[in-house]
Amino acid sequence: MLVSAFDIRHSNFRFMLDLIIIGGGPAGMTAAIYAARQKTDFLLLTKEFGGQMAKKEVEIENYPGLGSVSALDLIAKFRNHLELLNVAARIGEAVKLEKIEGGFSVKTENDEFRARSVIVATGSSPRMLDIAGEKEFIGRGVGYCATCDGPLFARRRVAVIGGGNAGFEAAIFLAKFAAEVFIIERGPKVFADPTNLELAQDTGKVKIVANARIARVEGKNFVDKIVYSDAEGNEIALPVEGVFIKAGNRPASEFAAGLVELNERNEMKFNHATHQTETAGLFVAGDVSDVKFKQIVIAAGEGAKAAMAAGEYLRKIKN
Amino acid sequence: MLVSAFDIRHSNFRFMLDLIIIGGGPAGMTAAIYAARQKTDFLLLTKEFGGQMAKKEVEIENYPGLGSVSALDLIAKFRNHLELLNVAARIGEAVKLEKIEGGFSVKTENDEFRARSVIVATGSSPRMLDIAGEKEFIGRGVGYCATCDGPLFARRRVAVIGGGNAGFEAAIFLAKFAAEVFIIERGPKVFADPTNLELAQDTGKVKIVANARIARVEGKNFVDKIVYSDAEGNEIALPVEGVFIKAGNRPASEFAAGLVELNERNEMKFNHATHQTETAGLFVAGDVSDVKFKQIVIAAGEGAKAAMAAGEYLRKIKN
Repeated sequence: MLVSAFDIRHSNFRFMLDLIIIGGGPAGMTAAIYAARQKTDFLLLTKEFGGQMAKKEVEIENYPGLGSVSALDLIAKFRNHLELLNVAARIGEAVKLEKIEGGFSVKTENDEFRARSVIVATGSSPRMLDIAGEKEFIGRGVGYCATCDGPLFARRRVAVIGGGNAGFEAAIFLAKFAAEVFIIERGPKVFADPTNLELAQDTGKVKIVANARIARVEGKNFVDKIVYSDAEGNEIALPVEGVFIKAGNRPASEFAAGLVELNERNEMKFNHATHQTETAGLFVAGDVSDVKFKQIVIAAGEGAKAAMAAGEYLRKIKN
Repeated sequence: MLVSAFDIRHSNFRFMLDLIIIGGGPAGMTAAIYAARQKTDFLLLTKEFGGQMAKKEVEIENYPGLGSVSALDLIAKFRNHLELLNVAARIGEAVKLEKIEGGFSVKTENDEFRARSVIVATGSSPRMLDIAGEKEFIGRGVGYCATCDGPLFARRRVAVIGGGNAGFEAAIFLAKFAAEVFIIERGPKVFADPTNLELAQDTGKVKIVANARIARVEGKNFVDKIVYSDAEGNEIALPVEGVFIKAGNRPASEFAAGLVELNERNEMKFNHATHQTETAGLFVAGDVSDVKFKQIVIAAGEGAKAAMAAGEYLRKIKN
């Protein structure tokens, strides 16, 4: 990574780059690959590499061409690709994105970068339920990444909150270790893909509790039960030692507030046909955007589109 | 490939599949990976694997995570991924797609397949110029795939018609063999990426002829010159032994005529936000569609979206 060359330029004056790509998940890294090949003067700014892939210790089986690859290996492959192209990367979290004369300002806690155009590819992170006991027991039974903490629950009973694909994938993974896994779904039925339903059934350990509204997490030092209300409103206590919350995601769009309209899930809206947002020079890609389906290869494709759209924009404003 | 199991079912009756994916390029193959993982009852119908990748004997350097990979290796990687998932594939060219009761009929020259939903991912192919001598000299100096036929022109003078990225990429490759390469551009200037401009200049062999409207190709048994008219309308003969035509692409959308509106480039239109076309149950992905940018990883991402949209559609009509 050419961070030192970048630092020298950056220390000299408040220079204006052509492009800042914010986010180092599949969308941001692919945008960087495309920007580098277009010889754009750009910076990749990210708090980490891999995005949500970095949270998974699982095999990824749907990145086309790779068959089955561990998340960490896939991240390494993307990073190698960036290094091959000498991509300048800076580790930092964007806390504020603003429009300035001739471009944009991106502030991190200790620094500021400026560019004529920006691609926001900051992804999303797990959504909290905001129920009693949730915050209190984080790291003491409550978690959001089953594949990170699952092995700690060997031979124990655990619950997964959320009967979608993410919940099922967590449950299937947890079943490798746990004695029993309860999927708690507030609706009348779960809504995961047939593959996941089948895989969950195959474990022989996953039980589905539908029509169950989670009320709170209880315990002493560690979680020892969850309490939910059933369809009739009765409160039921279910003894478990682990609770994994799979209740959707929170897109990292706050730092760009005001520049792009958000949808009801706080995802940044854009014109999917032209890849433009409502702010000229500002582009979005991947899970932080309102792209309908969230997948690694989709985020990568969207990152390529954003970089090409940014390239077009830069050629236009420079002529 | 589970062709035989498929054949047995197919021979029994005119059964209705859930999904037919037409096309075996990156969009179609990725759609198949996603359809297989969703346990969809589907068929991948394609005249070949790899789509436009199959026409390239070059290194592909922008498929994220693979750094630099030959086109043939990348096709092999996609095919291995399909085989890992036991994808049923049938070699054949779709000649007619029609709406029937409860779904669609896809006809090949000798067969017919039926399904509740269809993903069209048939890609596109090089556009002919329709100038005098073009057809006559195909294979005798006129070609569309520089990377296929370039080595035949060692120490010869060749022309590339078209000053976009495709034209430059052809010229850069041809310069490895040819004595001189002329890029013939009808507009006042070329419109390739800076990388390509630089790489072309680095060869020391590529010359750009702008404001040149190609009129015809001439020769005896083989091409010996092209004739173009300059900005003033003067006809100019340029002695060359090879002519590579890079004048855009022709999407393979004709067989679906009437089911989906086409844009001015004959690309199939769709709603990019929902991934629906105007015909319920019919989806499109990749270069045959009006997706703005045409790249392997973009086609792959679009194929994943189409498969997920088809999955949603199938769940909806089955409930």
